[in-house]
Amino acid sequence: MEFRSLLRDRHSVRSFRPDDVEQEKVLRILQDAIRSPSAGNLQSWEFMLVRNADVKKRLAEAALDQDFIAEAPVVLVVCADTGKSGWKYGDRGKNFYCLLDVSMASMIILLSAAEEGLGACFVAAFDDREVSEILRLPEQVRPIGIIPIGYSGEMPEITSRMPLDKVLHIETW
Amino acid sequence: MEFRSLLRDRHSVRSFRPDDVEQEKVLRILQDAIRSPSAGNLQSWEFMLVRNADVKKRLAEAALDQDFIAEAPVVLVVCADTGKSGWKYGDRGKNFYCLLDVSMASMIILLSAAEEGLGACFVAAFDDREVSEILRLPEQVRPIGIIPIGYSGEMPEITSRMPLDKVLHIETW
Repeated sequence: MEFRSLLRDRHSVRSFRPDDVEQEKVLRILQDAIRSPSAGNLQSWEFMLVRNADVKKRLAEAALDQDFIAEAPVVLVVCADTGKSGWKYGDRGKNFYCLLDVSMASMIILLSAAEEGLGACFVAAFDDREVSEILRLPEQVRPIGIIPIGYSGEMPEITSRMPLDKVLHIETW
Repeated sequence: MEFRSLLRDRHSVRSFRPDDVEQEKVLRILQDAIRSPSAGNLQSWEFMLVRNADVKKRLAEAALDQDFIAEAPVVLVVCADTGKSGWKYGDRGKNFYCLLDVSMASMIILLSAAEEGLGACFVAAFDDREVSEILRLPEQVRPIGIIPIGYSGEMPEITSRMPLDKVLHIETW
């Protein structure tokens, strides 16, 4: 789809049909995601692909009982390997750059899912430690977002935005 | 342009022709940016639009002398209003959610600039305090990235990526 049509059409989807999501679609989405820029091209992202019903249920619980996560046929947990950015850039790499890398890749995932005719939603409200335990993440790998993906089971709800002039500052604040 | 062509074509541009960038292009890019999702739809982004040569020079110095920043006709400094996310979500809002919001909006800026036939680059290596002073940012507003934008003065250099299977984990780590 045209980039701007895709951008205007995309919206957060929190209800999914039970229909399965083809693995090749998921892989195309992830191949898109790794086109994201990253600090020093260190690509600090790590992707967990979850289809197991029990694991999805536990992730939903760890995400303050956002049950729609467990409803999605596919759940991606996007993580930052803080070590990748940290070895080169120290604390700024560990606590800042790698978060940006993974967030940017996640934005691509949301757009790419829409390109595939799928709905998705970025969830950042969860208990980090619980998610890490469920997925057995190594110490230096931090979960950044949970992205349930599936065929949308709801009518699109386009959320409103503050007008640009409320957040645009010319030259100085 | 088709989303995937745009994504494949986009690359970080660090050299700019002196040609001016039309203001309507910059505004279209920013209108795209605010289509980003954000935690609680709180839209914690704030955008500084800089064209002043002296200010751009000082931003380049604050960014470890990355002189190409001053070369670009337009420099966007993307910021997080940590107060917007913080009032609702406390520390997780202030130190985490708002960074994600602004990074996602920034990914859209990079794609949208490419859609406009412009080159851009996301720079996160800078002295936060210096940038805040230069732009007179309020205490609670944190600079997240400096994005110089202009017509590309260099041949595209597509950086390589690690293969997906190095960063993809099925079910658990």
